[in-house]
Amino acid sequence: MTGPGSEQDFLSLIDRYFPAVNGHVTLGRGDDCSILHAESELCISKDLFLEDVHFRRSYFSPGDIGYKALAVNISDIAAMGGSPRGFALGLIIPSGLEYGFWDQFFQSMAELAAQNGLVLAGGDLSGGSILGISVTVWGEYGNGNRFLTRGNAFPGDILFLHGPVGLARTGLLALEEEGPAASVKYKDSVNAHLRPEMRIQAGQQLAAASCVRGLMDVSDGLARDLPRFLGCCEGSPGAKIEIPEHTLHQEIITYAQAKSISPSEHAFLGGEDYALLGAAEPEGFAELVGTIPGLQAIGTVTEDRSLLLNGNNFSASGFDHFSK
Amino acid sequence: MTGPGSEQDFLSLIDRYFPAVNGHVTLGRGDDCSILHAESELCISKDLFLEDVHFRRSYFSPGDIGYKALAVNISDIAAMGGSPRGFALGLIIPSGLEYGFWDQFFQSMAELAAQNGLVLAGGDLSGGSILGISVTVWGEYGNGNRFLTRGNAFPGDILFLHGPVGLARTGLLALEEEGPAASVKYKDSVNAHLRPEMRIQAGQQLAAASCVRGLMDVSDGLARDLPRFLGCCEGSPGAKIEIPEHTLHQEIITYAQAKSISPSEHAFLGGEDYALLGAAEPEGFAELVGTIPGLQAIGTVTEDRSLLLNGNNFSASGFDHFSK
Repeated sequence: MTGPGSEQDFLSLIDRYFPAVNGHVTLGRGDDCSILHAESELCISKDLFLEDVHFRRSYFSPGDIGYKALAVNISDIAAMGGSPRGFALGLIIPSGLEYGFWDQFFQSMAELAAQNGLVLAGGDLSGGSILGISVTVWGEYGNGNRFLTRGNAFPGDILFLHGPVGLARTGLLALEEEGPAASVKYKDSVNAHLRPEMRIQAGQQLAAASCVRGLMDVSDGLARDLPRFLGCCEGSPGAKIEIPEHTLHQEIITYAQAKSISPSEHAFLGGEDYALLGAAEPEGFAELVGTIPGLQAIGTVTEDRSLLLNGNNFSASGFDHFSK
Repeated sequence: MTGPGSEQDFLSLIDRYFPAVNGHVTLGRGDDCSILHAESELCISKDLFLEDVHFRRSYFSPGDIGYKALAVNISDIAAMGGSPRGFALGLIIPSGLEYGFWDQFFQSMAELAAQNGLVLAGGDLSGGSILGISVTVWGEYGNGNRFLTRGNAFPGDILFLHGPVGLARTGLLALEEEGPAASVKYKDSVNAHLRPEMRIQAGQQLAAASCVRGLMDVSDGLARDLPRFLGCCEGSPGAKIEIPEHTLHQEIITYAQAKSISPSEHAFLGGEDYALLGAAEPEGFAELVGTIPGLQAIGTVTEDRSLLLNGNNFSASGFDHFSK
């Protein structure tokens, strides 16, 4: 079996999986631009997903790559409390990938797009020496009729998470050490790394709750993203976080014990979980926990700029794709 | 001198050259998404610009790369008759490029952005093995209060160009043969390849003229793009084109004569000129020529599906980045 040979082969494959227009995308692929009809402000984001930087073909299936390339972008819409609408796809295509690879890649990406209401509105294809995916995604207001941004956290606010932290990092490290066999011992962790869960519904519910002040997605780990959330200016607040061991997934504890590291610090370093991190006024938060399954308070915003994890000062940084 | 060492170094350099918000981009870089406030429908496009596929560092200066990576995207907005508003930038950054490289790259890109009313609204940075630039650009209606699409051409319509064809291809081929020294003999051609002119104003004037039926930009050469413009369905029209030698730039003729090829066919194959190609009702076109400097009739749309260049059938295809 051979790979798609021409640009037209790729476009035909894409047309097989992706619908061309919806009420939002009024002119689809095939012209110089696509045309969007926005009912509200738009939120827009762009993430690169590159072989041997963000993923390895040795343990990502073609379907995993197609899924995650789009998922990490959708997560940015979730973090705004937005409703995804469309995306543009730039594909850098090395030679030698077979037709079956692209079939699985597009099928998996198209399923995720359809589940989240996204239309593929255009893009660009190019040959190249590496496999690379560049996605630009955009969305409109969800139920909340507003977008949530980072910051806006005040001393006394509750800090909360929606989704686990540390699980995807456990999966990444296990996969790097053991390859696909890691999924025997670290099934949920591996899955969290390969196919992170999208939190669009939770994001919209949070945007609809007036007690929620701000939201972001935890892509680089709590240790790096929490300071970004709180702000880095003079006068930005700090935080007091509790991540007790008993709240962590058993695989995180198993991994940390095997490496003789602290499970809580391992989870705090985290990375690529795409959990949502937010701040809310304490008054409304208790009610919110009852209505959004999986919402979990992890601490409070403090006047003191320091960052306390389980009572200890913490200043380590999460991992950095850029410096790889 | 060393290159920027960290993501923060890059972000500081970007902040030095690019303003963060305007009336259209209401939340700029630094959050999960940027937020756009659209006054009309939006047109959106995405193009990749990759080392050794779309450019070579041996004859593109850092400023040329920064310019053209954005320019080829802006041209898609021009081809819709739109007014550019914002762009997102994905940068794949190989190691070893010095600070001076990035300084010139961003300065040149920022100048072009400012000239065309574009705000850099976000993006993503990643290390990688090649230098790659992924731009997503968007715009609103210009003066014409509509977007122009491909097609809509009817038998009897005038086909027109705004901008030269064949000049950038002459530059590309001369640069590939001679390197930067090509600019001695082929100065305008080399410039047309390295720094193609943007036609935003002409695009908007064309959208404002009711006689204009459709528009696109000629990125892959007339021979490939004209059939795309006319449509590829059963019942699509054909065209009769005249590109007389005396209308061509002297450098095109010089190059074609040196290679013993037809200057008109060389110009027709073209590629990367980013001229605008359109169709207009004959009634209004004469008046339009008087108001848009550089507008040039090149032929008519015919019922017969064939493509005639200077009286000869033409079926050769332009060049294809994808197959490189």
